[in-house]
Amino acid sequence: MCAVGPVDATTVPRYGGSATFARLPRIDEVTGTDVAIVGVPFDTGVSYRPGARFGPSHVRASSKLLRPYNPVADISPFDVLQVADAGDIACNPFDIEAAISEIERGADALTGSGARLLTIGGDHTIALPLLRSIARRHGPVAVVHFDAHLDTWDTYFGASYTHGTPFRRASEEGLIDREASMHIGTRGPLYGDHDLSDDRQLGFSAITAPEIEIDGVRAAVERMRARIGDRPVYVSVDIDVLDPAHAPGTGTPEAGGLTSRELLHMLRAFGASNLVGADVVEVAPAYDHAEITGIAAAHVGFELLSAMAVRG
Amino acid sequence: MCAVGPVDATTVPRYGGSATFARLPRIDEVTGTDVAIVGVPFDTGVSYRPGARFGPSHVRASSKLLRPYNPVADISPFDVLQVADAGDIACNPFDIEAAISEIERGADALTGSGARLLTIGGDHTIALPLLRSIARRHGPVAVVHFDAHLDTWDTYFGASYTHGTPFRRASEEGLIDREASMHIGTRGPLYGDHDLSDDRQLGFSAITAPEIEIDGVRAAVERMRARIGDRPVYVSVDIDVLDPAHAPGTGTPEAGGLTSRELLHMLRAFGASNLVGADVVEVAPAYDHAEITGIAAAHVGFELLSAMAVRG
Amino acid sequence: MCAVGPVDATTVPRYGGSATFARLPRIDEVTGTDVAIVGVPFDTGVSYRPGARFGPSHVRASSKLLRPYNPVADISPFDVLQVADAGDIACNPFDIEAAISEIERGADALTGSGARLLTIGGDHTIALPLLRSIARRHGPVAVVHFDAHLDTWDTYFGASYTHGTPFRRASEEGLIDREASMHIGTRGPLYGDHDLSDDRQLGFSAITAPEIEIDGVRAAVERMRARIGDRPVYVSVDIDVLDPAHAPGTGTPEAGGLTSRELLHMLRAFGASNLVGADVVEVAPAYDHAEITGIAAAHVGFELLSAMAVRG
Amino acid sequence: MCAVGPVDATTVPRYGGSATFARLPRIDEVTGTDVAIVGVPFDTGVSYRPGARFGPSHVRASSKLLRPYNPVADISPFDVLQVADAGDIACNPFDIEAAISEIERGADALTGSGARLLTIGGDHTIALPLLRSIARRHGPVAVVHFDAHLDTWDTYFGASYTHGTPFRRASEEGLIDREASMHIGTRGPLYGDHDLSDDRQLGFSAITAPEIEIDGVRAAVERMRARIGDRPVYVSVDIDVLDPAHAPGTGTPEAGGLTSRELLHMLRAFGASNLVGADVVEVAPAYDHAEITGIAAAHVGFELLSAMAVRG
Amino acid sequence: MCAVGPVDATTVPRYGGSATFARLPRIDEVTGTDVAIVGVPFDTGVSYRPGARFGPSHVRASSKLLRPYNPVADISPFDVLQVADAGDIACNPFDIEAAISEIERGADALTGSGARLLTIGGDHTIALPLLRSIARRHGPVAVVHFDAHLDTWDTYFGASYTHGTPFRRASEEGLIDREASMHIGTRGPLYGDHDLSDDRQLGFSAITAPEIEIDGVRAAVERMRARIGDRPVYVSVDIDVLDPAHAPGTGTPEAGGLTSRELLHMLRAFGASNLVGADVVEVAPAYDHAEITGIAAAHVGFELLSAMAVRG
Amino acid sequence: MCAVGPVDATTVPRYGGSATFARLPRIDEVTGTDVAIVGVPFDTGVSYRPGARFGPSHVRASSKLLRPYNPVADISPFDVLQVADAGDIACNPFDIEAAISEIERGADALTGSGARLLTIGGDHTIALPLLRSIARRHGPVAVVHFDAHLDTWDTYFGASYTHGTPFRRASEEGLIDREASMHIGTRGPLYGDHDLSDDRQLGFSAITAPEIEIDGVRAAVERMRARIGDRPVYVSVDIDVLDPAHAPGTGTPEAGGLTSRELLHMLRAFGASNLVGADVVEVAPAYDHAEITGIAAAHVGFELLSAMAVRG
Repeated sequence: MCAVGPVDATTVPRYGGSATFARLPRIDEVTGTDVAIVGVPFDTGVSYRPGARFGPSHVRASSKLLRPYNPVADISPFDVLQVADAGDIACNPFDIEAAISEIERGADALTGSGARLLTIGGDHTIALPLLRSIARRHGPVAVVHFDAHLDTWDTYFGASYTHGTPFRRASEEGLIDREASMHIGTRGPLYGDHDLSDDRQLGFSAITAPEIEIDGVRAAVERMRARIGDRPVYVSVDIDVLDPAHAPGTGTPEAGGLTSRELLHMLRAFGASNLVGADVVEVAPAYDHAEITGIAAAHVGFELLSAMAVRG
Repeated sequence: MCAVGPVDATTVPRYGGSATFARLPRIDEVTGTDVAIVGVPFDTGVSYRPGARFGPSHVRASSKLLRPYNPVADISPFDVLQVADAGDIACNPFDIEAAISEIERGADALTGSGARLLTIGGDHTIALPLLRSIARRHGPVAVVHFDAHLDTWDTYFGASYTHGTPFRRASEEGLIDREASMHIGTRGPLYGDHDLSDDRQLGFSAITAPEIEIDGVRAAVERMRARIGDRPVYVSVDIDVLDPAHAPGTGTPEAGGLTSRELLHMLRAFGASNLVGADVVEVAPAYDHAEITGIAAAHVGFELLSAMAVRG
Repeated sequence: MCAVGPVDATTVPRYGGSATFARLPRIDEVTGTDVAIVGVPFDTGVSYRPGARFGPSHVRASSKLLRPYNPVADISPFDVLQVADAGDIACNPFDIEAAISEIERGADALTGSGARLLTIGGDHTIALPLLRSIARRHGPVAVVHFDAHLDTWDTYFGASYTHGTPFRRASEEGLIDREASMHIGTRGPLYGDHDLSDDRQLGFSAITAPEIEIDGVRAAVERMRARIGDRPVYVSVDIDVLDPAHAPGTGTPEAGGLTSRELLHMLRAFGASNLVGADVVEVAPAYDHAEITGIAAAHVGFELLSAMAVRG
Repeated sequence: MCAVGPVDATTVPRYGGSATFARLPRIDEVTGTDVAIVGVPFDTGVSYRPGARFGPSHVRASSKLLRPYNPVADISPFDVLQVADAGDIACNPFDIEAAISEIERGADALTGSGARLLTIGGDHTIALPLLRSIARRHGPVAVVHFDAHLDTWDTYFGASYTHGTPFRRASEEGLIDREASMHIGTRGPLYGDHDLSDDRQLGFSAITAPEIEIDGVRAAVERMRARIGDRPVYVSVDIDVLDPAHAPGTGTPEAGGLTSRELLHMLRAFGASNLVGADVVEVAPAYDHAEITGIAAAHVGFELLSAMAVRG
Repeated sequence: MCAVGPVDATTVPRYGGSATFARLPRIDEVTGTDVAIVGVPFDTGVSYRPGARFGPSHVRASSKLLRPYNPVADISPFDVLQVADAGDIACNPFDIEAAISEIERGADALTGSGARLLTIGGDHTIALPLLRSIARRHGPVAVVHFDAHLDTWDTYFGASYTHGTPFRRASEEGLIDREASMHIGTRGPLYGDHDLSDDRQLGFSAITAPEIEIDGVRAAVERMRARIGDRPVYVSVDIDVLDPAHAPGTGTPEAGGLTSRELLHMLRAFGASNLVGADVVEVAPAYDHAEITGIAAAHVGFELLSAMAVRG
Repeated sequence: MCAVGPVDATTVPRYGGSATFARLPRIDEVTGTDVAIVGVPFDTGVSYRPGARFGPSHVRASSKLLRPYNPVADISPFDVLQVADAGDIACNPFDIEAAISEIERGADALTGSGARLLTIGGDHTIALPLLRSIARRHGPVAVVHFDAHLDTWDTYFGASYTHGTPFRRASEEGLIDREASMHIGTRGPLYGDHDLSDDRQLGFSAITAPEIEIDGVRAAVERMRARIGDRPVYVSVDIDVLDPAHAPGTGTPEAGGLTSRELLHMLRAFGASNLVGADVVEVAPAYDHAEITGIAAAHVGFELLSAMAVRG
């Protein structure tokens, strides 16, 4: 292989040098990107704690310890795929719809030549333009959505596009496969039982966090595999799927969540899937401590890249 | 139903407006309270890190994200019960016995018309006057005590009433059912094996944290149900039952604790019980980070309220 | 006097009880409010670190130690004036112009019967609707603006209404007295010298932080008094006028700022002025530590209330 | 001289080894102590944020960088005087009056053979028993009290002995020289003007923080020297005399305080005085950051020791 | 028994007094030490976040709540064994090889009369001199190494002795039993598959963190016991074996780690083993919060001491 | 002018995009660099708190708010000079002398074509190789050294090259002008009076922090100008010259320091000098809060660049 990999840590110490994800090359330093990592510093769609606009730079800073070989998957993703850091999509902080358009155009531009995207948010609003771009290329996809919340609410303060609504909008717009999409890790109180019935109609099943407490992650993986089959899959990881102990640095934390070990286990299962794109969102650094949240998000990114690499 | 519920979050954003628990009405805004939530800002009984005097305001601030419907229990507790925030019981910070009297009187006043109490501490000293008030109404109750510690020590620096002694005093005073009380989540070193034998004589069995590691929470729930039967139950949750990762903001932390997901699972079991009162104590905000501890305590409160609502 | 004052701290300890500013009564608990304290939890106008939406609750929590007598001014403002906490103005987090309208209406409603406002932000965007409301009643006012920044920029990302533009908009709309307005504490790099010339044309003079280093606060007070004379004055305090050491909890911090002692000294001078309204904005609690910033803002509020009380 | 000094930092790095103040010898390692440094881990007298019980260990940890030579005073205090760390006075956390007795006895025991004390608190309640012990040996002393607060209140929640009352009690008990005592650095709101008149009657003059803003520290030193003359002086430093920027880790912070540089300047003046004892109190580590407060307190201690050494 | 135990917490409160591990006596206060606890404040071998030089003092401060009786093992280790705190081994921060020699000599000196060592790091570099000292007395030992990382890398920036290499060097030097050594808790990306093959050749098997997610800790204990048999065992606990949620205060954190409850469970198994020495390393306090990491390390120490005590 | 300036903040928000200092171009993006900003992530020379290896990335992250025009100097330095970010000099963390050689070579390479350097440390050890490189081009230079400490100690633990010794070594090697060098801001205890006499012999005068308290910064600037005249000047700013309130994130903090406003004032004076190079060192991010220290360092950098630009 001749992919350009991370900066050599025996030459440049990990605490110095490159500020890209996993110290990978910038996209302008390589030719023929297979997977582009792109930040979307946007958080105007949040309903509680803002700050995910600083997520991309924080997750990159927290990714400096990532080495290149995945021993569980027995693969070196940066050898198999040319992965590069595409920087950030600049988008308007004051106008949500303008920002959505900018993100959609930015995603299209990066994937125009066939690259897949791993996106670092930013709040969950950004999943909608990312799915629009994905669906344009792949048709409706199975969305596997790791999150404490359903994110299929309708409007909030009159706004159709917020971090609580991307999957309702995506379902309405025909971007997702309603037979194959699902939530994993949901928990905490809702507004009413209609939230759940709406959600099912929009095409989602769910494996809740309380179910994972009792049944474990292997059962969850089996249910997930049965649901998605070999369809094209988009994985969206809201870092608040983790318990606040494992991800304090997020905007709408809920007790009773997953451990990072559980999440990483489930993500490894996508090595057997047709993974067409992914994101990790809602890292709000002002609430993080010692990069606990950032490191979890960086490992999420690494497992997603590894899963992409297994199928090549 | 015509209970007054929380402030509507689609009108008043959750980061603004009411400072009550879960944005519920104040007790002076409703008639006929079924459950009163009351703070007891008191921490003069602590033996190590003080600061639980700021617990009530911190748990309230951390409860702003609580929505009204409990999907696991399939119930909207604020529809079924009129729940209201009764503010704080003012009590003397310099004289423990005076404070205990004030708390006892405060609890009596709030429950005089039949309301149940969910109390937010404050240190664990406050469980004694709360149990005195409970027992006056219900007779000796089964206490289910979630805690890293036994809290059945005798005296400390000559003081009979501290946060390490409430359940010994309660047992001595005949406030608890010695056939039906128990600890859950205890762990860490003790002074000697006499601590355990004393504890059993005072009427407590225990499910330790190391046992939960091996046997899981379903087994714990079965043992708990067998122990308490259909007796009136008082649940006392010292937040240090959680591991320091899940509850750094507390006064006497011990490694090897429960996850918030385990605790919430066990609390849901009280929906099948005759829950006559509950507290969550020992949240010390100066040691919290990003409301990890406060959010766990808020969810504890919500599950306890839900359990109260199941029986109506 | 028969004004209702703060909760008695010898009955209810300061760490418990009321969550209002300085433990003052709620506006619904009094009749005839002279000064209403109102929160505006809004931060969608920020260009860097968000989080000022949590400013009102944080400043209130940080105000619990405020006692009622001002020994420098020799006045007890809560005796002289009926001051009450009016809660928060709920405003739309996703639509800046909608929010501005809501704030303007909210301010009008509170001042309709003659009350003056002390507003707690929120980001600086909110100064525009507050000045619209003020000007409707008083005509163009002398604005004394304490801030590290000019806040007379034009647009940002195409938006006319952000936290960097309120005083340009206010000047354009004729809300301010162009002969009498000024900045105090400005510092740090700008985009170009046109920023300064624009600013002067919009009606502002400036006493910069470097000037205060050399000339001291007494000279600054003299220049300020000469500029404002006896005109109606609106004081707007962006907490980032303080050095980051004194106000880490803010959104666009600049080194080289004022100390809290200097700021409080200058605010005392308004006791001799015709102070028609005031705000303290840009407290972003996620970046605060041990309430350093919140306490500074609370004292700012207390000095402004005292200054209002001197003239009665 | 043959005094035993600090551990040699060229042999044992400062981050390792001894946990005593300034790495000085323990009192059991030397003979003939001239000055004993003693901790009083007590905070049951606080009215707001507790935590000063951890003050002694925190100030010691923050003192590890102290080297032995004072270049401003041109003296090496640990050469001139045998200074030793006497550990902590154990005292009852649940009974304020018992603790006061224990502190008084502890102080008497340490000073029985003529040693002077530098005490590390603990909350300000401890100044009373320390002054009792001092007055027994020296008669009424001039107290120079650095603090944001007067600490001459009468009672709080019925308690006569709290951190707000030590200097009223001391004055009533005849422990202080009413012609020569003073506060430095007071600021912030009070309960009423009677607080000031009471205070004067109890024997205190004051140099307030606002006065220091205008007149500077040299003027303050002159006023102080004029007041105390050559009387025996006891210096009591409540760390909250510093601005919250310089001392976030304290229990009742007030904006507008002193800088650490101003405080250290004023303390150096005691080299010309007859300094018979001193304390530094109210360091509450749970609210400190990066030892900002602890380091300030450690330097306070070093300047006080240097001042004691000048007179030998 | 006549072993000198910890300071009595009913006489000296835990937040005051002794700064030794678990408030045990200093080694100069007892005769005939069975187990010496020694700190090694050294972190010049780290490759990412430094700061473990402050580990010994931090773990001691975090150990103050440890009581003397272990209820799971039903043993009071400080009765059975004379355990004493030997202070710190002073070692050179600028010259790794000099430091290694100093640590080796320090360990030899402490164990010369037969005492076993429990060492508190410092970074993992220190395991090499500790194993040299151990092997000189016991021959090659079975090393059970709890860590996120293999620590069998070869060189880094040309240095043979760093925190990533101690177990390769130890294997090369014949200090470990290549039939019986193992890693527990490893996870995260590596440089390549050769890391694993090298590691096996050096004598290590591994139970990875992902395996513990699926198989649980009981299975891990069985595999461990089968591997080590009754050989002399040295246990080395890098605190980063814990998940960052449970140990944020460390230098090279990796997501997906163990809980403190799992780790403590596995450590208890060494009660059945011939435990000849142990260490807990890589606690970096600057990244800790509320002593989460320090408390975990303190409990690790207590379980290791208990295991030593079971065999006497 | 045609210099390439910072990324346009009206196109790319400041919280996104470039990770270079002040969002300036990378050195490979421009031709003809006048001033290169280079990081030296090295901290193996520290004697107390390590962590300055993360200084370069932290100061860059803290510099994102820097706008291009300096209103006090009335200059836009990035118009006048082509300033570019040269990334980091990779250097050995385990071998101080190897690192010094790497830094020296790195500095030579960057200045070979005439560029001046602004270096971001890293600990103060790095000043020695930087001065070697400077002196090779300019001969002995006047060093103006802002620091709490003298940094002219001789050896520490046998090491000649540490962060406490660079200016002694530089003087011995003839790199500095002994008639014209000086310290500003020194304070705190020393080892003995010989430290001061040694220092004078090595060519340094001093303006101490206590002197600045009394005489102010204007007097300091006059003394500085008189000392340096029009010689080539190298300015070295140890961020610990600031008080811990203004710079908590550093390794050897001392109370009683400068404010950031004072420091920035004094740095502006170098606009009249022949400034041939500069550094800002000892930012240790693990101890910083809300970028207080990083922002101060970023402004220090901006004033130094502005001063370089004044002379062109």
